[in-house]
Amino acid sequence: MTTGFTDPEQAEAAFYRAFAGLAIDGMEAVWSPRAAVVCIHPGGPVLEGRAAVLRSWADIFRSADAPGVACRTVSSSQGSDLAVHVVEEHIGPRGGNASAGAIVIATNVYRREAEGWRLVVHHASLPPQGQARPRRAEIVH
Amino acid sequence: MTTGFTDPEQAEAAFYRAFAGLAIDGMEAVWSPRAAVVCIHPGGPVLEGRAAVLRSWADIFRSADAPGVACRTVSSSQGSDLAVHVVEEHIGPRGGNASAGAIVIATNVYRREAEGWRLVVHHASLPPQGQARPRRAEIVH
Repeated sequence: MTTGFTDPEQAEAAFYRAFAGLAIDGMEAVWSPRAAVVCIHPGGPVLEGRAAVLRSWADIFRSADAPGVACRTVSSSQGSDLAVHVVEEHIGPRGGNASAGAIVIATNVYRREAEGWRLVVHHASLPPQGQARPRRAEIVH
Repeated sequence: MTTGFTDPEQAEAAFYRAFAGLAIDGMEAVWSPRAAVVCIHPGGPVLEGRAAVLRSWADIFRSADAPGVACRTVSSSQGSDLAVHVVEEHIGPRGGNASAGAIVIATNVYRREAEGWRLVVHHASLPPQGQARPRRAEIVH
């Protein structure tokens, strides 16, 4: 059994660590086992439910080289039992300069459950090509 | 001065009423005057702050014919002071069959403030072309 996370930031760090490490067990630990979770990959359809969401990450991980992921938090809304982070993900080759890679905009929703904070929604999309480079990303995995 | 909304559903109904009615005053009433709001239109950049967000809606409203908007709630996370709805927006010509129009996926975040619930994040993106038609949309404006 996995334990939860003591705050949304810890859950988010674990999410991006799993992403960068192509670690499906890390993804399993981060996504809520209780809520009706939803995941939207860039340009993708709405995936509903834990099984469909985790399957999509397993598919991505099977076909990808481990990326470097750096994040900048655009906005953070902290509630007593829900938290929402809008994040700019900078995704590049591992060991390279992640800030020079692709940019994805993600809205991540965390929910406080009995075992701690878990991810319940990840909605990602691509900003326009050629968007001005944002400020330096802060969290690097 | 505008009054707030007694629950997130009321705020969301007002948001889509303003959208369908090209009503900038309705948008002003729905978006939080306090929080660091964020809006991402489909394929667009991250817009931060009330002024930039409301300007973007005014620009959209100036160039658009009033649409018909129907919504299906994909998932709803209700907290004590934040609420998150993932919504499929069906946007078509007014008076037409909105379910036959374009589909946009939106994550809407509402926050309980002193005056009531207000919108703080709207993240919208396009699902893949040719995605299987979802179930019937429920709320029509």
